[in-house]
Amino acid sequence: MLFTPRAIGFARTPYTERSQIPKGPGTKHEAEGTLEVLPELDEGLKDIEGFSHLFVLWVFHQAEGFDLLATPPGQSIAHGVFATRAPRRPNPIGLTVVELLGRDHNRLRVRGVDMLDGTPILDIKPYMSSIPMEWLRRGWLG
Amino acid sequence: MLFTPRAIGFARTPYTERSQIPKGPGTKHEAEGTLEVLPELDEGLKDIEGFSHLFVLWVFHQAEGFDLLATPPGQSIAHGVFATRAPRRPNPIGLTVVELLGRDHNRLRVRGVDMLDGTPILDIKPYMSSIPMEWLRRGWLG
Repeated sequence: MLFTPRAIGFARTPYTERSQIPKGPGTKHEAEGTLEVLPELDEGLKDIEGFSHLFVLWVFHQAEGFDLLATPPGQSIAHGVFATRAPRRPNPIGLTVVELLGRDHNRLRVRGVDMLDGTPILDIKPYMSSIPMEWLRRGWLG
Repeated sequence: MLFTPRAIGFARTPYTERSQIPKGPGTKHEAEGTLEVLPELDEGLKDIEGFSHLFVLWVFHQAEGFDLLATPPGQSIAHGVFATRAPRRPNPIGLTVVELLGRDHNRLRVRGVDMLDGTPILDIKPYMSSIPMEWLRRGWLG
């Protein structure tokens, strides 16, 4: 066993059903939500207010099993699962960049959530730098 | 149990000791390495060649336990672990953005590795977009 995953908190989002989450290439996620970190881990958020953007690692807790190929929403061709953000992955971990709007003790108010309400959060990391958009090639996203 | 983490492969990097890994604010990671995905998962890499950059999620496999506060290299003040990239985290997951240089079947040659040789890889995801650097506030990184 590599390690035992534990929830450091849970996401509160407007989405109670997967069908409500906007999907597809070019989708902009503007929904606001809250990352509720467990009160006993509150000290782990010290100084996070200084960052405008965060990486959130979370669990696709409704996914079971995985496929090696996945057809993204709005696409007709299947791609390798590691070339997509599909939920059914060998390790069902999601990654979202959110904008930090404010902190109230163990609650982080954020913009850009794209996960279900109640999603277990694995980790939060500061977003420190970006690859310039003009350097990116984005494969099947075109 | 949220899920059982499994290695989808292992990183081959120039770093056999943690002390060899360049650290500290502003460090640029230019080292080249290879992400060796398990041969049976090779199909999961289909079309990944089209992306110039990838997110790699991996395990801090030499970290044990965690601290809620961490003092980054070169800093004198401790910050909350979730405001740093410190290895001793509640879930010992690392996140690195790498540039994809080439693919040979199940081997991805990449630039920008900052993990130890032999590090278990949990996931690979396409890097699809960036937050413009001028929008970022970067807290204690200044």
